[in-house]
Amino acid sequence: MNNPQLNKQGELQHLLSTEGLPSRILYDILDRASTFVDGDGCGEIRKVPLLHGKAVFNVFFENSTRTRTTFEIAAKRLSADVVNLNIGSSSTSKGETLLDTVDNLCAMHANMFVVRHAQSGAAHLIARHVAPEIHVINAGDGRHAHPTQALLDMYTIRHYKKEFHNLRVAIVGDILHSRVARSQIHALTTLGVPEVRVIAPKTLLPSHVEQLGVRVFHDMEQGLRDVDVVLMLRLQHERMQGAALPSAQEYFKYYGLTQEKLALAKADAIVMHPGPMNRGVEIDSSVADGSQSVILAQVTFGIAIRMAVMSTLAGAK
Amino acid sequence: MNNPQLNKQGELQHLLSTEGLPSRILYDILDRASTFVDGDGCGEIRKVPLLHGKAVFNVFFENSTRTRTTFEIAAKRLSADVVNLNIGSSSTSKGETLLDTVDNLCAMHANMFVVRHAQSGAAHLIARHVAPEIHVINAGDGRHAHPTQALLDMYTIRHYKKEFHNLRVAIVGDILHSRVARSQIHALTTLGVPEVRVIAPKTLLPSHVEQLGVRVFHDMEQGLRDVDVVLMLRLQHERMQGAALPSAQEYFKYYGLTQEKLALAKADAIVMHPGPMNRGVEIDSSVADGSQSVILAQVTFGIAIRMAVMSTLAGAK
Amino acid sequence: MNNPQLNKQGELQHLLSTEGLPSRILYDILDRASTFVDGDGCGEIRKVPLLHGKAVFNVFFENSTRTRTTFEIAAKRLSADVVNLNIGSSSTSKGETLLDTVDNLCAMHANMFVVRHAQSGAAHLIARHVAPEIHVINAGDGRHAHPTQALLDMYTIRHYKKEFHNLRVAIVGDILHSRVARSQIHALTTLGVPEVRVIAPKTLLPSHVEQLGVRVFHDMEQGLRDVDVVLMLRLQHERMQGAALPSAQEYFKYYGLTQEKLALAKADAIVMHPGPMNRGVEIDSSVADGSQSVILAQVTFGIAIRMAVMSTLAGAK
Repeated sequence: MNNPQLNKQGELQHLLSTEGLPSRILYDILDRASTFVDGDGCGEIRKVPLLHGKAVFNVFFENSTRTRTTFEIAAKRLSADVVNLNIGSSSTSKGETLLDTVDNLCAMHANMFVVRHAQSGAAHLIARHVAPEIHVINAGDGRHAHPTQALLDMYTIRHYKKEFHNLRVAIVGDILHSRVARSQIHALTTLGVPEVRVIAPKTLLPSHVEQLGVRVFHDMEQGLRDVDVVLMLRLQHERMQGAALPSAQEYFKYYGLTQEKLALAKADAIVMHPGPMNRGVEIDSSVADGSQSVILAQVTFGIAIRMAVMSTLAGAK
Repeated sequence: MNNPQLNKQGELQHLLSTEGLPSRILYDILDRASTFVDGDGCGEIRKVPLLHGKAVFNVFFENSTRTRTTFEIAAKRLSADVVNLNIGSSSTSKGETLLDTVDNLCAMHANMFVVRHAQSGAAHLIARHVAPEIHVINAGDGRHAHPTQALLDMYTIRHYKKEFHNLRVAIVGDILHSRVARSQIHALTTLGVPEVRVIAPKTLLPSHVEQLGVRVFHDMEQGLRDVDVVLMLRLQHERMQGAALPSAQEYFKYYGLTQEKLALAKADAIVMHPGPMNRGVEIDSSVADGSQSVILAQVTFGIAIRMAVMSTLAGAK
Repeated sequence: MNNPQLNKQGELQHLLSTEGLPSRILYDILDRASTFVDGDGCGEIRKVPLLHGKAVFNVFFENSTRTRTTFEIAAKRLSADVVNLNIGSSSTSKGETLLDTVDNLCAMHANMFVVRHAQSGAAHLIARHVAPEIHVINAGDGRHAHPTQALLDMYTIRHYKKEFHNLRVAIVGDILHSRVARSQIHALTTLGVPEVRVIAPKTLLPSHVEQLGVRVFHDMEQGLRDVDVVLMLRLQHERMQGAALPSAQEYFKYYGLTQEKLALAKADAIVMHPGPMNRGVEIDSSVADGSQSVILAQVTFGIAIRMAVMSTLAGAK
């Protein structure tokens, strides 16, 4: 039972991964997030005092302006004090260890760490190390997990599809290197989605991926047939000219989402992408900007999800 | 009438350029700014709640700590939440398009964008693209416009000279590459300054500059004669060793503002500069620090002007 | 009498150095800091409105995420508006002088500057230059001074040892290049510590260091005998392969703090370090993490000290 994400009362203490989280916790976060959503985005920011007097440290060992900004905005809406630390250019470059850095930040009265790190397991390591009143949120660690991205995806799916238990969901792209895909698969299966598909060339699939409870397709046209939700993944630039793939053009031909391929999914299927998009590589612009795309709604719901996670953690005893 | 800066009620919706703005709008901003000026700078920051609950995103595709800081301070005085984004190091380098970046920030509940970009027209492009409740402020786009700089210059001129309709104003330096000069010329002529002069070598003047309603001088001593206001421009370093100019020393000899040259202007003429100054290149230190210099007052008034612009935009329906 | 740090009423106007500060001022800061300490760190941040409406500018001409963050957190706990400026990448690189930069920031309504600069004397220069209502805090200038570090060290010593007048304190390491050591020596002697020792190889000691009122040891085992407090210094990487030292391994052998060497000090001696630590170079991990180490307490007290300094300065007339 020793779940590093839950405290003895079974409350969420850290958010490190969607793997191993009970569905009750996932639903609580989705429900709480819905209280922070007003209208359809781009609206007034309603500030709430839930984190007043708390200090949230965005500790980014790997640069990501986009993700850091969503956490910053979410924390400010909750009235927290926010400190951004881009650690690439800081103490670790002076030879300080990761845990020394964390100890120091903790001693500065941090209440919550949002951590991004290129190494899988970094957020777990930090969570095991900090004092019990400190909360850690994994904002992406190596190829391992990106749980807030998966949660905002689940929120978006529920928003448009209402229920999980009757859906076919396809995840398309570089599953092998994707922390997003891993976190999505765990969340989808925990929430009861009966059929999760992964669509990718063999070179971009982890071995034994079926053990995660997914159906594997190498042919995108077969894989998209009759799905309710298409979750596209970003193709990292370093893959495009690597050994795994012939070229971005070739990739687009077989695994890029076009209107023609999307037509094989259900008529009311929604298209999602974690951003930033490579238009013309994994997704065609006409799909990205089309009527089935809910990509910008994902971003808006992402603020609410991060507010929900932070305020849930802050409420744990 | 299709002015992209005004809404259907004729209110300021975006501030993109001083070109095309009616004098009524300019005066409204100057008058509003005066309500935010207390004393002579360096004083207490009086916080006002006009932008409480609003999120201002400083989106700088081109680095400028100074300009970004003035907007940040102004927004914080208005009680806004401020997020700084230095996009050079961010998503656009990952292949995301400018408008995708903007869409994403909008979806994060931005209420106002302050945009600096090396491409002329970037702020217009963004303003055309965003939802109607979002406001865009151009903080400098290529060689095109820098309207808040021009507005703070107008505020400074009115502060010291009381009226515009009886003034001779000279703009000196690299008119060709200067977004500041363009914005100043439009603002000065709109506000009724009867004589606007530009003083520059031929290589640093746009062709047909007279069509903007200015008198052209290549000789600085002739051009400064009897003027009330001297607006110096910054000489960009890249010009100093280019084909357009023999050297910084040579430039200073002919177009640097010295006490001797300034003595040709009216005895109570004021000297202005947008900063940062190249002392000994376009301006002599004795002038920069002399009794006729109002260069630091410009900076102080710049905070008030940015508060005025932001609160005006936030009040538009 | 012309102390640049005090105003005519004898109040602290700037904090530039611990040198020349009367003990009354030092004790006032320590006492005030104690009002901001609640418990043992990692706790709730109690926000106080002492600097509400004030603008604190962290002006770092030399990068230091750690130090900048402590000032940022302290200022936010005091409810100030905080603006971070990393000037390395800004106007000075455009040819603007240091004082022009300061003048501009002052004109933006700065109330307080926190300055770090690679040049000794930079903070003094700025303090002499600014208007009388502006306060300057030296966050480290060249090899000269780092007064808030020394003050938090004094706070930590008093916290664990209660009094100064009966202590033996040893400072170990690169005294020659250390602004921290200089500031510590002045503070310790002013507060009445009867015996301050410095322990270092000859190549890392300033000439005539005895004139500062310290006893010099080249042998660490002799120097540590019967001391109450061990203040370790960080060994800069650039020293490790320079002419002054044979190697990091060699340095550790003679001047690294191990359990064996520490056993020569008093049984209840405390070990301090300004961070970031080079484990295995100047300090062994077993000591850094051992029961006599108070290194993380230093960080926590550092927030309270910076709050005390800022609120003291803000209260000066």
